[in-house]
Amino acid sequence: MEDRTYTADAEPGETATVAGWAHEIRDLGGIAFLIVRDTTGKIQVKFEKDEMDDDLVETGMNVNRESVVKVTGDVEEEERAPTGVEIVPESVEVIADADPELPLDPSGKVDADLSTRLDNRTLDLRKDETKAIFEIRAEVLRSVREAFRDLGCTEINTPKIVATGTEGGTELFPITYFGQEAFMNQSPQLFKQLMVGSGLERVFEVGPIFRAEEHNTPRHLNEATSIDFESAFYDHEDAMDACEHVVKSAYEGVAENCQAELEALGYEDFEAPEGDFPRLSYEETIERINATGELDEQLVWGDDLPTEGEKALGEEMGGHYFITDWPSEIKPFYIKDHDDDEQLSTGFDLMHPNMELVSGGQREHRYDHLVEGFEQQGLDPESFEYYTKMFKYGMPPHAGWGLGGERLVMTMLGLENIREAVLFPRDRQRLSP
Amino acid sequence: MEDRTYTADAEPGETATVAGWAHEIRDLGGIAFLIVRDTTGKIQVKFEKDEMDDDLVETGMNVNRESVVKVTGDVEEEERAPTGVEIVPESVEVIADADPELPLDPSGKVDADLSTRLDNRTLDLRKDETKAIFEIRAEVLRSVREAFRDLGCTEINTPKIVATGTEGGTELFPITYFGQEAFMNQSPQLFKQLMVGSGLERVFEVGPIFRAEEHNTPRHLNEATSIDFESAFYDHEDAMDACEHVVKSAYEGVAENCQAELEALGYEDFEAPEGDFPRLSYEETIERINATGELDEQLVWGDDLPTEGEKALGEEMGGHYFITDWPSEIKPFYIKDHDDDEQLSTGFDLMHPNMELVSGGQREHRYDHLVEGFEQQGLDPESFEYYTKMFKYGMPPHAGWGLGGERLVMTMLGLENIREAVLFPRDRQRLSP
Repeated sequence: MEDRTYTADAEPGETATVAGWAHEIRDLGGIAFLIVRDTTGKIQVKFEKDEMDDDLVETGMNVNRESVVKVTGDVEEEERAPTGVEIVPESVEVIADADPELPLDPSGKVDADLSTRLDNRTLDLRKDETKAIFEIRAEVLRSVREAFRDLGCTEINTPKIVATGTEGGTELFPITYFGQEAFMNQSPQLFKQLMVGSGLERVFEVGPIFRAEEHNTPRHLNEATSIDFESAFYDHEDAMDACEHVVKSAYEGVAENCQAELEALGYEDFEAPEGDFPRLSYEETIERINATGELDEQLVWGDDLPTEGEKALGEEMGGHYFITDWPSEIKPFYIKDHDDDEQLSTGFDLMHPNMELVSGGQREHRYDHLVEGFEQQGLDPESFEYYTKMFKYGMPPHAGWGLGGERLVMTMLGLENIREAVLFPRDRQRLSP
Repeated sequence: MEDRTYTADAEPGETATVAGWAHEIRDLGGIAFLIVRDTTGKIQVKFEKDEMDDDLVETGMNVNRESVVKVTGDVEEEERAPTGVEIVPESVEVIADADPELPLDPSGKVDADLSTRLDNRTLDLRKDETKAIFEIRAEVLRSVREAFRDLGCTEINTPKIVATGTEGGTELFPITYFGQEAFMNQSPQLFKQLMVGSGLERVFEVGPIFRAEEHNTPRHLNEATSIDFESAFYDHEDAMDACEHVVKSAYEGVAENCQAELEALGYEDFEAPEGDFPRLSYEETIERINATGELDEQLVWGDDLPTEGEKALGEEMGGHYFITDWPSEIKPFYIKDHDDDEQLSTGFDLMHPNMELVSGGQREHRYDHLVEGFEQQGLDPESFEYYTKMFKYGMPPHAGWGLGGERLVMTMLGLENIREAVLFPRDRQRLSP
């Protein structure tokens, strides 16, 4: 295919053509260097002004930074060059000239705020650090899919255009669909449940979800990547085991396959979590949060966990942990209650010390209970008939969870804003690019 | 995790608990069989009425078909059983009773039309044939991602909510986005192009696309899965090479890893395509279509290819082939023209004998030409400024393509309707489930 040598592959003694971006020009007088950058690294091109064709030197020296260039020449060993080799050019071609005024400096010497970076992702991603985040993101997705296949899952794709949302209409973006009202789906919840009752039994999906939440925080997105799992004949404990396997696999994949990227981000001791993730009941959780003394008011049974409380406990825990056995009243109606205590739900959350990553549980698979749940939620079971009716034809007990893909990357890499983990984030203000 | 033995793993001599669906009951008088089906296959449970507890026999014999059951008992060799083993039950538990009236017969004995199948996917997917399609679909996605990684691509995810569409507003679904007008994206085209100018250089995405086309044919969907590729420093020939690699890898993955599924679908000699895909110029293509004599009117330069023409040529070709060098006027403005003939575009299509699978080409990377293209298309370049402006900062020559995921599965398996390759298809009539 392409007739170029990657900069990282240029070997002394050969003639090579490299193509990439003019990263920097260093003019030392009689000698000058053009640093060419491609996706594999950087290489030095040496211009000895007195010994070279004037046109060649002029082309090389007058390239605007970040222009696309193609350089052909002999590769020579040069200890003083950053990569130990340099090119002595025979030809330099400017393929795509760059404006001298850049909205963002890809060399990283001039800091840019996040908004400028997001407006200019093309340039932002020429920086090693930003590129590393997205290479790692890709590896996370690769590893989680592999982990799901280890677990015997079938990958599914469920529709993003839906007639009704999982949890009512308040947080849905409305669409006009051939004259009908429709919505962008906020979760594959109902569809993945329909699949565990099919011959597939155990499924996963990695895909976009859309939430019209008015939140505008460093950890919320209006379009996000959801990593979903659901399995027949699993209870909440099985689902937590699967969750632990998948999250650990993501870390392990990155630890194994992203050494250069971790280095670019300044990690020296990135390690996948070891040992089992502790499982704390909700009751234990509120007791321990109360004991931290960080809250003005003590938590009581039935309270949601406030962010400060999660953070205080997270600091104590120092790693991932599950919160189990939530009060039924604060978990969605499709989560099953414990058989011996209907005030107690089988719902669970996986927590990173800094925030919630996963929400899951065993599901209500009994038709009558499910329909009741819709009614109690103030939803009309009739509009969900496509879903509930399948529970009349042999729906096995099942459990599953949804993991926020961006939150996984964000917490793994200690990013300050979730938008750093998305190429083109969507929030209340940001609809473009 | 789960405490059951898959039916396929039940070994004679052990006590096993299997869980699954009551596939069939065969009552032969003194002896009766309950066939239990799970995701791995089926197993026979034997009831010898005179020798067993009456309650046990009654439970087993009165199970409604498709109910979820759990059976524990000794596994014994039995030559006459379909899988060579059977279970002599100690206990039979009905976990989820099924209505005796099923809207669709998962045993496949009663045919159902596609609409009924799509309304009842949970039951439809209990049939081996339907299940096989979606297991194969999952393998196709796995193999194409692996093929992309062979090619050095980084996986990306681009936004599905956008301010402007790639090709104008006519085929877009409008959304209300926090009071602003927005659209569901019809293609990752612009975003993937922005990424080839970044440090990633070569990218792929597998994700949903949304097209408000009024087509209602067996090969169109309003929500589909697009498999997208884009690479810096590639021309259209390189992009075709990459396309061939990815499509062949999908076939090879299925041939290697989906033997049972292919068998369920009745394939005895499924083979991955061998040899290079022929590359016919548009000019040659219309000549050859004209020569088939299948068209009432001869095609002339600039005509779109009519479906009957594609089919007639497809039959002659007998396998995948590319159509290259299209007239510029019938390819999108962002496709680059040949340098030596601006009437001739670098656009290409990959054809399966039955239909178009892929559309691609080298892209226009020169800022001025690109802005002109928007204007000629009647689009306001200002609304695409987030995209065009990046072409001022060093945008390399690049090429890529988009492959219809469902069309790939449909043509690979010879499905008659593209909806058979989607769990929950969306078309003008179908918005639910």
